[in-house]
Amino acid sequence: MQFHLNGFRPGDPDIKPAAAGSGSTKDHLPDKVDVLIIGCGPAGLTLAAYLAGFPDITTRIVERKPGPMEKGQADGVSCRSMEMFTAFGIAEKVKREAYWVNETTFWNPDPGSPDKIHRTGRVQDVEEGLSEMPHVILNQARIHDRYLEVMRNAPSRLEPNYSRQFVALTTSDNEYPVSVTLQRTGPAHEGHRQTVHARYVVGCDGARSAVRGAIGRELKGDRANQAWGVMDILVVTDFPDIRLKSLIKSTDAGNIILIPREGGHLVRVYIELDALTKGQQITPKDITVDHLIAAAQRVFNPYSIDVKQVAWWSVYEVGHAITDKFDNVSAESVGSQVPCVFIAGDACHTHSAKAGQGMNVSMGDAFNLGWKLVSVLQGRSAPDLLHSYSAERQKVAQDLIDFDHEWSRIIGARASGEEEQTDTPKFQRYFIEHGRFTAGLSVKYTESTLTGTATWQLLATGFEIGTRFHSAPVICLADAKPIQLGHTVTADASWRLFAFSGSGDNGCGDNSKIAQLCRFLGEDANSPRLRYTPDGAEPDSIIDVIAIFQQPHQDLDYSAMPALLKPKKGRLRLTDYEKIYSADHRQGDIFDMRGINREQGCMVIVRPDQHIAHVLPLDGFEALAMFCNGIFKATT
Amino acid sequence: MQFHLNGFRPGDPDIKPAAAGSGSTKDHLPDKVDVLIIGCGPAGLTLAAYLAGFPDITTRIVERKPGPMEKGQADGVSCRSMEMFTAFGIAEKVKREAYWVNETTFWNPDPGSPDKIHRTGRVQDVEEGLSEMPHVILNQARIHDRYLEVMRNAPSRLEPNYSRQFVALTTSDNEYPVSVTLQRTGPAHEGHRQTVHARYVVGCDGARSAVRGAIGRELKGDRANQAWGVMDILVVTDFPDIRLKSLIKSTDAGNIILIPREGGHLVRVYIELDALTKGQQITPKDITVDHLIAAAQRVFNPYSIDVKQVAWWSVYEVGHAITDKFDNVSAESVGSQVPCVFIAGDACHTHSAKAGQGMNVSMGDAFNLGWKLVSVLQGRSAPDLLHSYSAERQKVAQDLIDFDHEWSRIIGARASGEEEQTDTPKFQRYFIEHGRFTAGLSVKYTESTLTGTATWQLLATGFEIGTRFHSAPVICLADAKPIQLGHTVTADASWRLFAFSGSGDNGCGDNSKIAQLCRFLGEDANSPRLRYTPDGAEPDSIIDVIAIFQQPHQDLDYSAMPALLKPKKGRLRLTDYEKIYSADHRQGDIFDMRGINREQGCMVIVRPDQHIAHVLPLDGFEALAMFCNGIFKATT
Repeated sequence: MQFHLNGFRPGDPDIKPAAAGSGSTKDHLPDKVDVLIIGCGPAGLTLAAYLAGFPDITTRIVERKPGPMEKGQADGVSCRSMEMFTAFGIAEKVKREAYWVNETTFWNPDPGSPDKIHRTGRVQDVEEGLSEMPHVILNQARIHDRYLEVMRNAPSRLEPNYSRQFVALTTSDNEYPVSVTLQRTGPAHEGHRQTVHARYVVGCDGARSAVRGAIGRELKGDRANQAWGVMDILVVTDFPDIRLKSLIKSTDAGNIILIPREGGHLVRVYIELDALTKGQQITPKDITVDHLIAAAQRVFNPYSIDVKQVAWWSVYEVGHAITDKFDNVSAESVGSQVPCVFIAGDACHTHSAKAGQGMNVSMGDAFNLGWKLVSVLQGRSAPDLLHSYSAERQKVAQDLIDFDHEWSRIIGARASGEEEQTDTPKFQRYFIEHGRFTAGLSVKYTESTLTGTATWQLLATGFEIGTRFHSAPVICLADAKPIQLGHTVTADASWRLFAFSGSGDNGCGDNSKIAQLCRFLGEDANSPRLRYTPDGAEPDSIIDVIAIFQQPHQDLDYSAMPALLKPKKGRLRLTDYEKIYSADHRQGDIFDMRGINREQGCMVIVRPDQHIAHVLPLDGFEALAMFCNGIFKATT
Repeated sequence: MQFHLNGFRPGDPDIKPAAAGSGSTKDHLPDKVDVLIIGCGPAGLTLAAYLAGFPDITTRIVERKPGPMEKGQADGVSCRSMEMFTAFGIAEKVKREAYWVNETTFWNPDPGSPDKIHRTGRVQDVEEGLSEMPHVILNQARIHDRYLEVMRNAPSRLEPNYSRQFVALTTSDNEYPVSVTLQRTGPAHEGHRQTVHARYVVGCDGARSAVRGAIGRELKGDRANQAWGVMDILVVTDFPDIRLKSLIKSTDAGNIILIPREGGHLVRVYIELDALTKGQQITPKDITVDHLIAAAQRVFNPYSIDVKQVAWWSVYEVGHAITDKFDNVSAESVGSQVPCVFIAGDACHTHSAKAGQGMNVSMGDAFNLGWKLVSVLQGRSAPDLLHSYSAERQKVAQDLIDFDHEWSRIIGARASGEEEQTDTPKFQRYFIEHGRFTAGLSVKYTESTLTGTATWQLLATGFEIGTRFHSAPVICLADAKPIQLGHTVTADASWRLFAFSGSGDNGCGDNSKIAQLCRFLGEDANSPRLRYTPDGAEPDSIIDVIAIFQQPHQDLDYSAMPALLKPKKGRLRLTDYEKIYSADHRQGDIFDMRGINREQGCMVIVRPDQHIAHVLPLDGFEALAMFCNGIFKATT
């Protein structure tokens, strides 16, 4: 964590200095804004938290409800979302407060006594080494709180404008092309309307999104014929796995997914209702929480479940739906028109809750869009960059829905006689096979201007182009601190160029490829860093160059390192000491862990959203320049 | 982290439910209190944060200054203090914000060119495995902020009463035996006096403590003939170890201790001034920051130090002093009188800053006293328990002063020709040898009613009686979460009984010694748990029993565990699932790491301040009962 760059400043370093003219935005919604976000769900707040770091961009987020959420429905936070949280500086607090999904157990009917369940399997929830972060469970409301804190503490001091309902929008060719009509919902200004003119509007207004309707898009999908009940309960029970995620199938009483919750006592129970509705001749809409409790008690037999408090409950039918595009430009007009209205999260894809993916994919949408909006609004990139949002995220959502379809079917299936005979029933096998998916790590952006071709992929087999940068431990040369390299990719819209050294390279001398690369980046007319970093901007603000050496850090000489890796920053031109790392020979060597070619080394280019854009040879100067030319706009 | 025990409660779980009748204490200082703390330094705030968790105890803390500190002098946080911070739930945030002292380097005159320094050594700052927590550096003011947050969020919503100066105190035989006169210092009530009657008063009012004077104690010691300057600066430099703690000796220009600070840019420089004052014929009181900067530039030769900002600076002379007792009872009256006034921190011991111990020992004083005051005020223990505070902490302070004496002498010594010839100069050797001391881990309370005899020490050689409980990783059986066992010892005034299983013991069956111990504790008339836990109190509130098994957690059956290890708690009588652990076979087996006898197992009794009180055989029921009888008071 870096601070005091522009002079010593007492107080909490997480509270950034307020930008000139910024103040609480809670009570004032201007008529003209750069970005207007509709809806304070996980997608809207992720985007707002991202944009709040850029006070030169006027961002506002409006919400129909009168204040922040207190109890949310979503609760699963995938490893990938936790990795993303490191970019916002909120991962530690979430980790501390959340339930950690360490293991998952599988229960099936006992063949000897089929009305009773027994444990048939137990697996580590997240495969070893898949991520440096745990899979956790935490009330969505608490995730919201973290984002609201990031926004409040950001230079722009951004707070939501509550009690404002989206009514309609129109687009034009003006400088602020989107006109949004909002209506006040609070008692104070009930019915009062305001028109806000925005450069960009992002609809994060949920499954019934009005923004989606306003741009003429539709959710298309199916309504699976499965009703589920869900309840958050405090229980006294003799079920031994009540603090482990458990997938439970009974013979006739239905299936249950048990998800322990934060705080050591609360559990969430998802109950398949087919058995209940069939047996009791009742429809889902007539179901009460007492039905759910009774159903749970039947499934858990021979264990008892004594419900002491119901914190929340609901009944829903599983549906899967998706829109064909996530912005306001039709497929035919992509070449001629730039989008100015986007939708994200449940507004463009809905699915069952049971794969624990909804909130995660929604946050992922916003994390993909955030840096692109910043890049275009700040003139780092041309506006057609914005087409990539829908192109990349629609495919992710479609994959999720396909996965969720299959998963819902498997979870909902009756326990069969055949299942009972095998050691690892189908749903356990499927669960293990799809670990990368549920961890949020299966997302792979395909080749585009933002994602290079795999020509040099073999130089770093563990950094697969298009997937998220898989972090590994390294040691900071200047202060000998062990850190996770992936955590250097913060929510600052910068691209990272990780230069992994080749054999024997110690950063100095004529033969050092790292030194040669630094010379190219620092001096050559074709250097993308020189070309695309505006005058007056910090040297690492557009392309942040970080070197990683193979040697133990004690064998390297900080003094002899290229100047480019010791950038001077801030008002006082102080050195940033956190650009040079070496492999951590105690915790694990990143070169081995990620299959980096030790002889040649390589460059790994990482996008601001932590996805790997490209792998190039250390001397691939021209390829680097070409690739960057497709992304950045030259400063004039 | 446990919450929702008494029902689901939205919001931040770190903000505990307010106790009935509690509100902000900032504006109201009652005339009668249980504990009055004088001074908002590290000792006072540690104590206040401890007591704030007990709303049945009326605690107030007063401070002469008008508000919280913004810049503090102290900055070193030892491993031991970080361990203590886990008890308050503040370690993660400190870890994130602080500088980590990973390595220390040693610089000496270059024999070939004695006016220049060169690096002669580099060592890991904290020996491998010494603590699970790092040694860190963070502005004292930020530590204060963390404690103030703990106080504000505690059930008693405790906030300091600022602008109140201690004037005098008298003691009597009343129920509230200490009468304290305070005078307002703020402009609003300037000069206004109030008398507060307290059961206990704790003077944490620094080296010039007025409370110390009021109880007739004196700081006695020496004034070493060494002046030091200190400055917190932002610099541009080519000194390669500017982000590493460095001990630097020059030939003639004096010695420096360089301590990098939080945020990646700030550094603290301690400069020995003998060389300066001798050479310049200047006295310490005439020294300006420009003298310090010039002196530093001479020491750092051949490297340059360009100071961009001085955040803070000071000049002081090293002194070591200590009082003979830390309370108001004379040595002769210990058998007949119970103390009601205590002093802690700098009020009873002063020393140089360079061993980085001051703040740490002060916090340690308060952590020792906090649970004792709670135990006596709540009737858990008899009042003569309070004698142990002075007895235990005076010795710690004396040891610190002895160490600091030696360390100051070694640090202050000229670099000698002989030193230059050896590979590891004396100060580097001394630094390594005394690593346990600087890490705060050398404290060992000697045998007393609170600290047992070493009869069964061989059952757990790594848990030395009297030293702090050295944490190690374990896995929680119920939820498979990997945790640090030591972090179960929170700031709640409870004693812990860690029962480590013997060979083959799985917690059930007639032969299980763990089960036998649980039966004794749960059913036997001599059980200290039965005897000393008041009616209506939570079963684990006085003696918290935690079992640790040798087997991998997958091989244990939660259902079959003794009921005592699954206590029912709170309004809803929910199960506390965090009492049963197993060795962590991936991160390190606690039985191996701490030398626990695998055949027999053992009990390790841990005090509320995380120090080991006793090691006993698992079937040492009588010895356990006897030991507890010396500590607790039977409930009537």
